[in-house]
Amino acid sequence: MTQYKIPVIPGDGIGPEIIAEGRKVIDAAGEKFGFDVDWVEFPHGADHYLETGELISEDSLKELSGYKAIYLGSIGDDRIAPGVLEKGILLAARFYFDQYINLRPIKLLDGVWCPIKDKTPADIDFTVVRENTEDFYIGIGGRAKSGASKDILEVHRTLYNAKFGLDIETDSEEIGYQIGMISKEGTQRVINYAFDLAEKSKKHVSSVDKANVLSDIYGFWREEFNAVAAKHPDVSTDFNYVDAMTMWFVKNPEWFDVVVTPNMFGDIITDLGAMVQGGLGLAPGGNINPEGTSMFEPIHGSAPKYKGQNKVNPIATIWAGAMLIEQMGEKEAADAIVSAIETNIREAKVQTYDMGGSAGTSDVGDDIARIVLGK
Amino acid sequence: MTQYKIPVIPGDGIGPEIIAEGRKVIDAAGEKFGFDVDWVEFPHGADHYLETGELISEDSLKELSGYKAIYLGSIGDDRIAPGVLEKGILLAARFYFDQYINLRPIKLLDGVWCPIKDKTPADIDFTVVRENTEDFYIGIGGRAKSGASKDILEVHRTLYNAKFGLDIETDSEEIGYQIGMISKEGTQRVINYAFDLAEKSKKHVSSVDKANVLSDIYGFWREEFNAVAAKHPDVSTDFNYVDAMTMWFVKNPEWFDVVVTPNMFGDIITDLGAMVQGGLGLAPGGNINPEGTSMFEPIHGSAPKYKGQNKVNPIATIWAGAMLIEQMGEKEAADAIVSAIETNIREAKVQTYDMGGSAGTSDVGDDIARIVLGK
Ligand SMILES: CC(C)[C@H](C(=O)O)[C@@H](O)C(=O)O
Ligand SMILES: CC(C)[C@H](C(=O)O)[C@@H](O)C(=O)O
Repeated sequence: MTQYKIPVIPGDGIGPEIIAEGRKVIDAAGEKFGFDVDWVEFPHGADHYLETGELISEDSLKELSGYKAIYLGSIGDDRIAPGVLEKGILLAARFYFDQYINLRPIKLLDGVWCPIKDKTPADIDFTVVRENTEDFYIGIGGRAKSGASKDILEVHRTLYNAKFGLDIETDSEEIGYQIGMISKEGTQRVINYAFDLAEKSKKHVSSVDKANVLSDIYGFWREEFNAVAAKHPDVSTDFNYVDAMTMWFVKNPEWFDVVVTPNMFGDIITDLGAMVQGGLGLAPGGNINPEGTSMFEPIHGSAPKYKGQNKVNPIATIWAGAMLIEQMGEKEAADAIVSAIETNIREAKVQTYDMGGSAGTSDVGDDIARIVLGK
Repeated sequence: MTQYKIPVIPGDGIGPEIIAEGRKVIDAAGEKFGFDVDWVEFPHGADHYLETGELISEDSLKELSGYKAIYLGSIGDDRIAPGVLEKGILLAARFYFDQYINLRPIKLLDGVWCPIKDKTPADIDFTVVRENTEDFYIGIGGRAKSGASKDILEVHRTLYNAKFGLDIETDSEEIGYQIGMISKEGTQRVINYAFDLAEKSKKHVSSVDKANVLSDIYGFWREEFNAVAAKHPDVSTDFNYVDAMTMWFVKNPEWFDVVVTPNMFGDIITDLGAMVQGGLGLAPGGNINPEGTSMFEPIHGSAPKYKGQNKVNPIATIWAGAMLIEQMGEKEAADAIVSAIETNIREAKVQTYDMGGSAGTSDVGDDIARIVLGK
């Protein structure tokens, strides 16, 4: 029997409840497909931070780097200022493990209520490949009253004014600024990944940017996109400004096969994508480093107000578990889990409140595990 | 009879056709409400640029600055690289005239087909106030192979690594970067405007940011928001991460009264808002400097493939014309135009293809002008 060791970070709020169901279903798949998982628990999250002061230490990260895939519940707690846990744990892990792909299947499952009119599962079935380590997520920025940082902006503003023959001034003595950066390798590797995915799919890649306004950063993105596209003459492509993309996700989701996007725009459009596929309770995500340590999570947050109530939908987490187990090499088991989720939804007997049912979190996990086991 | 001089920039693609209808309707409103408009044409756009090399010169801008409101069709042409016309004309004007408010009513008119299930005109009726002169729109960025700009990033990256106890490196020798900046005055004035609007409306202001990740720039935004909110104890507020906001626009548009947002996120969510209110053919926008020169436009683009076909919907432009005429002080005429648009839609006899009809652009303009005149 194949033996896997998988680290798990249940995290905050509803994290532990949903992760329990995800583990249950993976364990069932192991029973069925001949593998056994040894789950290694990590305590990181709000409580651990408040008790010990540790967000996630380099020691913990080093330890986790010995594994191929991490199972993450959710991070976030009202007692702690916005950004502290997200940056200190979630983004720290994405960056440390160089998980440069954020993979988000946008798939309306049969039987799921879609908030958009006239769309069927055949219309909503594509994948977003979000860059996950660069762009405006690098955490570089500051405040300025005067001095060095202000001077940098002044130099640039002078150049900008000269370029357009204008005379724009900001007299403000107080500013907040943020820098985004994308590199050649960082951009090429994620776009390569998207094209490889499209080669195995419907051979179409859609790029997202805002090259008409943020021309320096996304003009660069477009050039790299074109360079990679040139190596895939059999794959068709299109460009979409991010603002327009939010319209197409609602109006014409059937246009898309693989969508590749810089980090921040990817964050925005994948939440919209989750809504289009029926809601956050159904949307999984993978933070992937194909050669290193990946991390799988539902894309929803920790929903503190539902904590401990056995109420929320575990399907996003169970689906993320299927992606995890596929990453471990268990493709057949992964397919069986997704298919069991589909059966559970189609049968519509054991569902949480968000899907119109009255079952608990653990009932849904039990039901999907049962289906995986063929019982 | 009151006499107005209004500069008009028909622009590219379908711009001239839709602007013609907008003028027709404003002229009709003038006939009814006792004012007369002297339209002053400006040639700026793709053809003018290709012929003369002028995008929009400081001389032209100075001349335009003598007016209270500009009527703009649409800018954009496939012969010219993305960004050149948009930045050189549209953004240049927004910045030069310091049009710090981008006002976007999101209103589902009675009789308009909404792509979202189970939503009625009572559910979709709010206003987005988008900051319009700062943020990532300031056009500051660059490329770096080595040298000064790279060094700036290195310094920041070292600080970032130190802050999180990490060791992240980008070996890339080639990067594209972009800087966004918001100032104290720039942020306060747009938030003040939003609260003033809410005071006259349902007394609720929703803020949009991504303070959990782009903490420097949007943490600053949040502080300024809180400072302004403290002066309006009767107005309730909430904070929304931009990614979640795309979900609420689809799921719970009825939550919103006034939404205030930094520039780039505003660009993104107002396109989604346009879709939710029935499509781009119906969405107007105002670039407003309450003390200076404002500019009104449909938020859609120049749709080159429909140019000269008398096919596209002029309603967004006509509605923008109503906003313009309200800015000139003709509130009654503005209300009459919006009401005429509503009547045209309710009657559903003279509609363009996007609304399921077969009328031409000019037929819709004629019909709305007729209704304004009470004929
Ligand atoms: C929690 C937050 C930092 C995160 C992000 O912005 O990436 C989340 O929204 C996501 O999409 O995974
Ligand atoms: C054309 C483009 C520069 C512009 C913007 O990004 O502001 C447009 O999308 C808008 O929303 O008015």
